Amino acid sequence: MKIATFNNHRVGLVEGDLIYDVTQAVPDAGPAFPQVYMSRLIDQWPERRDDILAARQRAQGVSLETVTLNAPNPAPFHVVAAPVNYRKHIGEIGARSVSGNSSAIERGFFLKASSSVSGPGDGIVLPKGSTRRFDHESELAVIIGRRAKNIPREQALDYVFGYSCLIDMTMRMEPGVGDEERVARKSFDTFTSMGPYIVTADEIPDPGVLGNRLWVNDQLRQDSNTSALILDVPGLIEWASSVMTLQPGDVIATGTPEGVGPVVPGDRVRMTIEKIGTLTVDVKEAVDFAPKRF
Amino acid sequence: MKIATFNNHRVGLVEGDLIYDVTQAVPDAGPAFPQVYMSRLIDQWPERRDDILAARQRAQGVSLETVTLNAPNPAPFHVVAAPVNYRKHIGEIGARSVSGNSSAIERGFFLKASSSVSGPGDGIVLPKGSTRRFDHESELAVIIGRRAKNIPREQALDYVFGYSCLIDMTMRMEPGVGDEERVARKSFDTFTSMGPYIVTADEIPDPGVLGNRLWVNDQLRQDSNTSALILDVPGLIEWASSVMTLQPGDVIATGTPEGVGPVVPGDRVRMTIEKIGTLTVDVKEAVDFAPKRF
Repeated sequence: MKIATFNNHRVGLVEGDLIYDVTQAVPDAGPAFPQVYMSRLIDQWPERRDDILAARQRAQGVSLETVTLNAPNPAPFHVVAAPVNYRKHIGEIGARSVSGNSSAIERGFFLKASSSVSGPGDGIVLPKGSTRRFDHESELAVIIGRRAKNIPREQALDYVFGYSCLIDMTMRMEPGVGDEERVARKSFDTFTSMGPYIVTADEIPDPGVLGNRLWVNDQLRQDSNTSALILDVPGLIEWASSVMTLQPGDVIATGTPEGVGPVVPGDRVRMTIEKIGTLTVDVKEAVDFAPKRF
Repeated sequence: MKIATFNNHRVGLVEGDLIYDVTQAVPDAGPAFPQVYMSRLIDQWPERRDDILAARQRAQGVSLETVTLNAPNPAPFHVVAAPVNYRKHIGEIGARSVSGNSSAIERGFFLKASSSVSGPGDGIVLPKGSTRRFDHESELAVIIGRRAKNIPREQALDYVFGYSCLIDMTMRMEPGVGDEERVARKSFDTFTSMGPYIVTADEIPDPGVLGNRLWVNDQLRQDSNTSALILDVPGLIEWASSVMTLQPGDVIATGTPEGVGPVVPGDRVRMTIEKIGTLTVDVKEAVDFAPKRF
């Protein structure tokens, strides 16, 4: 099953090129703060699933091209991220970003702001007038299905609700700018672009064999496979849940392979993860957001 | 006004030694996931305030000693934290934790897991059987009142709902263990202890002149004042909101002064922030949570 949000917080199921509106089966779906309806739906999925399918039967499919897709979970409590999780990526981002070349296996995880989550229709919005470099990072996103604490890797996939594509946007550090926290450099609004929808876990029996490719303006920049992950999906869930309690709807950004590079306003970024789908996002410059600092 | 949660997600106003139950005026207050009722109340405060005061008038005060206080916001979307924000703290935690001695002014902020938030009654729970060192960090917590993006420091205090005490618990790095992310080392469940309640901003005209002291088993360990903050409360809101959109109910942990040190199960930690109150928490060992990794 492919679950999307669209047109300002409606919920739909995607089949082929059509989307079926099932919002009526999702309590409190809408733009009102806090937008926790997807996290709650995921938490209550065993009881809600039949209602969703019934709403799907009643709905008329409309062309995906006629709607605007938003983030498949607009407000997760946590966006957990693996710091360095593909070996070939280690060399390219510089020693200042990866002290001691340690990877996700030793380093654990960091967090991105929930408010950085965005969808295809939001674009990726760079600060106005910034001279800093902003890089794309193509990643498999794992969406957690149930409260998960201290889960051994053998059971970890039972806690997955589904998967999505995720572009982890990053402001690179610059000499002389100070040793800015990775969390801050990755938490600008729209810097966690997700979509086009969540593919439920039953359709992805093995998240460790998925091709992961990203293009900027049709130029292939990243081309890898989740088989090259240093710490795989079960391992990431084991690591993160050995510290924190993962919540329904939480997102794990599994890390990016080699090939990261800069994007600028006007670029179109497209990423595909095998069996999941294609996320296409336009890079824009903010109209009015011009922080003095960057 | 002093707003607390108590007895498993009831909401109360504290006056002197009494607490008045106002839960009936707080929509959806209760333990059901997701526990966003305090974030929503804060967002809707201008419309809800009179209902809360009316409920207070109808309520019978009960002794604070007879209730169990929980975290004043049990599930904020973001716990934003200042990495190094008192000069005298820089020297004591070692070069591996503070590369280049840069402070919050350059480094920005990091995030702690929302699931790490706890209240006085929850205690601070250390992993079972761990040989690692776990340190207390005594901090002023700022609770955000309204959506805040790109706010200049001159307006920043208008976005504050209130203040609380916060113990930012931290697992220290050890030689040979790998360069673990600060986020992971600080995000264990219960590692963001908050309380005893939120004091609304109208009672704290200047958050930059508040004594901040912490004792372990009645031994004074930390004794400073928010006047020693490198980046003050308006500056932290300016910095964080220049990147991310702060949400109603979000927490900013403003950083800890010198004097951090280890706690072990059986310790009682007590911290006081002037004009706010005293947070007393017992340190425990987890009954069944024994991750292999730490």
